[in-house]
Amino acid sequence: MIINVTEMEKANGTIKSAFNLLKDDPSAVIEIVFHADAIGFLSDPGNRNAILEMLESGMDVVACRNSLVSKRIDERSLMDGVRIVNAGIYEVLKKESEGWLYIKL
Amino acid sequence: MIINVTEMEKANGTIKSAFNLLKDDPSAVIEIVFHADAIGFLSDPGNRNAILEMLESGMDVVACRNSLVSKRIDERSLMDGVRIVNAGIYEVLKKESEGWLYIKL
Amino acid sequence: MIINVTEMEKANGTIKSAFNLLKDDPSAVIEIVFHADAIGFLSDPGNRNAILEMLESGMDVVACRNSLVSKRIDERSLMDGVRIVNAGIYEVLKKESEGWLYIKL
Repeated sequence: MIINVTEMEKANGTIKSAFNLLKDDPSAVIEIVFHADAIGFLSDPGNRNAILEMLESGMDVVACRNSLVSKRIDERSLMDGVRIVNAGIYEVLKKESEGWLYIKL
Repeated sequence: MIINVTEMEKANGTIKSAFNLLKDDPSAVIEIVFHADAIGFLSDPGNRNAILEMLESGMDVVACRNSLVSKRIDERSLMDGVRIVNAGIYEVLKKESEGWLYIKL
Repeated sequence: MIINVTEMEKANGTIKSAFNLLKDDPSAVIEIVFHADAIGFLSDPGNRNAILEMLESGMDVVACRNSLVSKRIDERSLMDGVRIVNAGIYEVLKKESEGWLYIKL
């Protein structure tokens, strides 16, 4: 399933929900797209552990390049393993069109 | 159709929209999942009438147990008729997988 | 695809994302529904250019009548070309039921 996060203050809650989902259904395939204001979550060194934990649990952690550019964040500042797409919105819609379930918190 | 509410300040607006939908389409089947910060709406005694009105109109009013635990809310404080699920996020995705339409306000 | 905007502070970001989507996929068919607090975006004269730009790019710009009434906004104050529906929530669900992809920012 695919989730998008657009607000910084919802990043931690969304990640927590994703882990709760994994607990309920360990076979769940989870992609989290960070865009708009929430893109800053991925470039903040204080979140390295949280991001690492997501990656290690098998989640697909995705950054929106349009949001990076808009917030003047160098994409080389993102951790290895974080996947970059041109447009977060396009990524969500593409996955939905492939049958992925979508939720926004 | 299934709606999720995650922000306290959107609870009343989301409920109002659900009633507007019922007005337009009295046959609509509506489930509202309260999770994250919005879980507090269901445990606030000041909202008893609003919750009762939803239940009496036939809406499925759902509380997320993970959110209850996280906010240290005793689930026995919820009104009769409010349904509890383990994970609000899982409930939304499950209904979507069954063909329910989804919206977030 | 169909997007809904419910918060004033997300209107500009949502519109920008819609244009980013168009840039990635010029054939995208885009409908943006403004409801709840975000309805005020469509009646603010300061947003005429932004609204005009959406309309000229072929986006379907939709206002929710329930939200207009709730905010006491005269629907005659909306720009020509903005389409009015009774309930924004119903509009989103109707399009989803017709197979449109949905996203909320």
